[in-house]
Amino acid sequence: MAEHSFQAPKGTRDFYPTDLALRRRIESAWRSASVDFGFDEIEGPTFEHLSLYTAKSGEGIVSELFSFRRAGGENDYALRPEFTPTLARMAAAKAGGLPTPVKWFAIPTMYRAERPQRGRLREFGQWNIDLLGLEGAAVDVEVIGVAILALERLGLTARDVQVRVSHRAVIARVLAALGVPEGKSADAMSLLDRRDKLDAAEFHKRASALGLASDAVQRFDLIARATQPLAQTFDQLASATGVELGAFSALEELRASAESAGILEWCTVDVGIVRGLAYYTGTVFEIHEISGAERAIAGGGRYDGLIELFGGPRMPACGFGMGDVVLSNVLADRGLLPKDAQDLLPRPDAFIVSAGGDADRFVAALARNLRSAGLHVRTSYKATRNVGKLLSDANKARARYAIIIGAEIADGRIALKDLASGEQRWISIDEAATVCGHTPHAS
Amino acid sequence: MAEHSFQAPKGTRDFYPTDLALRRRIESAWRSASVDFGFDEIEGPTFEHLSLYTAKSGEGIVSELFSFRRAGGENDYALRPEFTPTLARMAAAKAGGLPTPVKWFAIPTMYRAERPQRGRLREFGQWNIDLLGLEGAAVDVEVIGVAILALERLGLTARDVQVRVSHRAVIARVLAALGVPEGKSADAMSLLDRRDKLDAAEFHKRASALGLASDAVQRFDLIARATQPLAQTFDQLASATGVELGAFSALEELRASAESAGILEWCTVDVGIVRGLAYYTGTVFEIHEISGAERAIAGGGRYDGLIELFGGPRMPACGFGMGDVVLSNVLADRGLLPKDAQDLLPRPDAFIVSAGGDADRFVAALARNLRSAGLHVRTSYKATRNVGKLLSDANKARARYAIIIGAEIADGRIALKDLASGEQRWISIDEAATVCGHTPHAS
Repeated sequence: MAEHSFQAPKGTRDFYPTDLALRRRIESAWRSASVDFGFDEIEGPTFEHLSLYTAKSGEGIVSELFSFRRAGGENDYALRPEFTPTLARMAAAKAGGLPTPVKWFAIPTMYRAERPQRGRLREFGQWNIDLLGLEGAAVDVEVIGVAILALERLGLTARDVQVRVSHRAVIARVLAALGVPEGKSADAMSLLDRRDKLDAAEFHKRASALGLASDAVQRFDLIARATQPLAQTFDQLASATGVELGAFSALEELRASAESAGILEWCTVDVGIVRGLAYYTGTVFEIHEISGAERAIAGGGRYDGLIELFGGPRMPACGFGMGDVVLSNVLADRGLLPKDAQDLLPRPDAFIVSAGGDADRFVAALARNLRSAGLHVRTSYKATRNVGKLLSDANKARARYAIIIGAEIADGRIALKDLASGEQRWISIDEAATVCGHTPHAS
Repeated sequence: MAEHSFQAPKGTRDFYPTDLALRRRIESAWRSASVDFGFDEIEGPTFEHLSLYTAKSGEGIVSELFSFRRAGGENDYALRPEFTPTLARMAAAKAGGLPTPVKWFAIPTMYRAERPQRGRLREFGQWNIDLLGLEGAAVDVEVIGVAILALERLGLTARDVQVRVSHRAVIARVLAALGVPEGKSADAMSLLDRRDKLDAAEFHKRASALGLASDAVQRFDLIARATQPLAQTFDQLASATGVELGAFSALEELRASAESAGILEWCTVDVGIVRGLAYYTGTVFEIHEISGAERAIAGGGRYDGLIELFGGPRMPACGFGMGDVVLSNVLADRGLLPKDAQDLLPRPDAFIVSAGGDADRFVAALARNLRSAGLHVRTSYKATRNVGKLLSDANKARARYAIIIGAEIADGRIALKDLASGEQRWISIDEAATVCGHTPHAS
């Protein structure tokens, strides 16, 4: 038995303390940004009935899922590959009793039975923001704004990441203007969606197959790859592609809202952003590291038909998902992780040492008093009474103060050493909680 | 499709905002108590290789697990039914490079394919504390102390819950003193473990089958059900059961440590606490609501051979698990949940309303500034310009302040209304973050 070496399943992670501290820092930015925008946190089961996923995505999704059946049970389950079906189910179940708008966020763990690669694991954390019940560019911008606030709190700026936005109405009008027949518009969207996976020749071949004339293929290619700051007007793009300016009106509304909300510099128009053919109905966006070196940090948009699909009322909706794996890579790429990962761990307020003898028996009681007052307190487990060695352990633990209990405890006095300044003084044992207590952790 | 009604899988929970706020309050008490005792948080995969569980518990455990295999994959996986195998695997993998002691906590989600009943679900949260590398009663008491600190922070006292402690060495010496032959001691422990599930006649029948004489059966029954404050000496119990006083020495050491640490009043001796036959080697304990009405809130003890079982070095260890389901029931039983669940949700610092006209366009920008300063800010989504109605929405949202933007914004002035006192005054827009910012949420 002791010979057997056990390992974590492929595509999953073991989080040792500094690994988890980084993940918690990310989650804390997600959570605080959500709360500050007035979103309430929800959570659902880690696994759902398999039919919840096949209802939305068809049987084809089963091969991408970890699905299972309890021994002797009748139902097939699947580990959740995304949160939206759970959210839609929960919203549909309470549709009559929910306020308008519904503003929910969640930080669930997700599972995908895919081959692991950079930025893509089989188990990962994903922040979900959903705003249900309201339409309009200002709402879409609010949703984008939550993502930006979280990224700012992690140290990222508009020079590190950009929100690439497009809009289904703009895409539809552009395709019509280029002469894509109505029956081929789904094929054209699908081609747009795959533009980065095809070389130029293949793209042109497939664009021609849509029935486009040779010059329209050129203009389709141009607009499929067109990016520009959202701050910029569309005159130039319209004249270069021969698409009327009015086709871009949905993005112009988005620009006006983004400007009011002060996030215009974070946004780039990328007309070819489609986010798949499923369920998006208006604004679509992805957040990318600016060099494009990593996968998308987040993706989302407006999906006004989704709640209805899961048995609820028709309800406009806008939201996004942001995973922890790509984001961690981007933070590392941008030098935004602490050089010493230990700095992510909480620092003890006090480290109590005993000078030996009768003092030993006061350590546990003092530790309990200070912890009850909300302080992070450590003590030594060593038998040594060499106070110098014990103080060195206190320093290694990165404690703010060392408390030394010696014979003076008989008079209720203890020595307090500020480990940053090295200054040491006598205090009354009753003062200890107040003096060390500048950063209480009590809940 | 819209006719289909989707539901959460049996034994799992949908957490709407107030449900999740309660769970987060519990997790926050767990996390802060862990940190204040100097434990570092870890996490592992939600599913593990099935063999990790069968190695420890045998093939019999499979029927209690949600196990599965990826389509086309070779490995069987299982959703984790407990965290200890993951922890042991992680400790074994880094055994050479870990500090002594290792103090880890985790708040993982667990899964058991059992019939759901009160206090027992198929998916639940469980706090795990593990202290590796040290022996001794003081360490066991430290581990118990973490649990007590978290329960205190949730409002529980020693009059609500008690830690019921026993010790494997005491049980072994008691069984020997009663005359249980060595070859039958596992059977005797197993009988002790099931004492609450058997009626008196059945218990006596099985005790006789151990080879105990009739008076020894009586004494076995007495000690199996004996409970007394840990503060009390064992003289009485020893003389009533004919067991020598020295048999209780391990519990006497625990008493001395619990007294030093100031948690003696929280502890009850319950000799018959066994916690199953698997892996415990010394102190064992369970935490129960004092009336015994609910299942155990937590269970744990010392398991010095476990890390070795998973391929690591021999390493003493002590820890416990505490689930969220029973604990939530106990908090409800004891009246420790807020009467209005809304009170668990975060309160907005400010609710911004526009008096209409040109003021509208300042709302989003001010909201962004205040949120960037770490404030929780909400705005109205209503088209109405009836300020009275909007202020009533601010009150409903439980905001601390309402900010009213009117024509005076032209001079950089906004109206600030303290919603508790009703007092309203003019402030400069630049002061808003400072004035409303007494409770920043910035990470």
